[in-house]
Amino acid sequence: MSSTAKFTVKGALTRARIVEAAADLVLARGVGGTTLDDIRAGTGTSKSQLFHYFPAGKRDLVAAIASFQTERVLQAQRPFLDTLDTWEAWEGWRDAVLAHYGSQPHWGCPIGAMASELIGSDPERAAEVAAHMARWCGYLRAGLTRMRAAGLLRADADPEALTLAVFAALQGGLLLTQTMQSIEPLRAALDAALTALRASAP
Amino acid sequence: MSSTAKFTVKGALTRARIVEAAADLVLARGVGGTTLDDIRAGTGTSKSQLFHYFPAGKRDLVAAIASFQTERVLQAQRPFLDTLDTWEAWEGWRDAVLAHYGSQPHWGCPIGAMASELIGSDPERAAEVAAHMARWCGYLRAGLTRMRAAGLLRADADPEALTLAVFAALQGGLLLTQTMQSIEPLRAALDAALTALRASAP
Repeated sequence: MSSTAKFTVKGALTRARIVEAAADLVLARGVGGTTLDDIRAGTGTSKSQLFHYFPAGKRDLVAAIASFQTERVLQAQRPFLDTLDTWEAWEGWRDAVLAHYGSQPHWGCPIGAMASELIGSDPERAAEVAAHMARWCGYLRAGLTRMRAAGLLRADADPEALTLAVFAALQGGLLLTQTMQSIEPLRAALDAALTALRASAP
Repeated sequence: MSSTAKFTVKGALTRARIVEAAADLVLARGVGGTTLDDIRAGTGTSKSQLFHYFPAGKRDLVAAIASFQTERVLQAQRPFLDTLDTWEAWEGWRDAVLAHYGSQPHWGCPIGAMASELIGSDPERAAEVAAHMARWCGYLRAGLTRMRAAGLLRADADPEALTLAVFAALQGGLLLTQTMQSIEPLRAALDAALTALRASAP
């Protein structure tokens, strides 16, 4: 993983600015559709500056963008994400997810799209992105595990399978928001996922 | 849409062979990660032959691949896809989907991945791919609409929202089969989607 520890405060801020602007370009065009020249032009950065902050070029940038996008999307799900152990928290989480993705152009999930696109061309980078997705899933699984322990889910409920189901609904809903240019598929997908969760209540 | 009407039988067969081989390459590497040279090499085709069958080059090929992949995946869901108006048919459909995707490398959904990748770089082609997805959804919606008419779903059930939820579960489950290299996310996603459908029964 890239670290900003080796830069001055000013340098770290410049690097963060480049990552944020490049993230938007990659979101709109895909990793394959975005060249380093596009990123230089879009961020007003010179070639030497870009390689100063990202010595391995696009590979370093892609890794930094994946971290940045993950933090952004996790933050948008807080505080619910950390307390998914009541039905109220799950409803709040659903609303926060819809509000976050409803407030921006329908670009799908930046993390899922990167993982899917990279897996064929750069498996190492794809694995890094998949690790971010696993971390995201971890919050859902932790909540469901606590709910089962508290008796809000039946003893035979499987937190792992339910986590995969909710996360698949989220990712698939986001893919369809992109192809249909509407938030409705995400709403329908999350509503159905929460219905399925509640079917595991005692 | 490309047509094969202008080719001889032999020509149409050659074209179909190129599309099938190119489809596998694009599935593994993405549209952006596959060049026409890759396709020439992978299909043993000359440049002039490729442009004879696909005058607009990669754009024509991508359109042909999307049609081919859609037919292949719809065929794998038959006969259930045409008769999704009983709970038994939905269970059969779920099993057919799992058997189809479980029997091949975990490449995700060829249609969803193409739509997502193309939307930033080639909106016109992306809309064609999205139309294939809409056709696929149409079979699910038709079944659910008939189930509601037959009283197997409540009168207040919304076939459109349920269709989006099932299709999102399928697409998201497939994305996760790719990033996690396991069929389990797809199984969990489809099981939860069918649980949500059954929650709309009277």
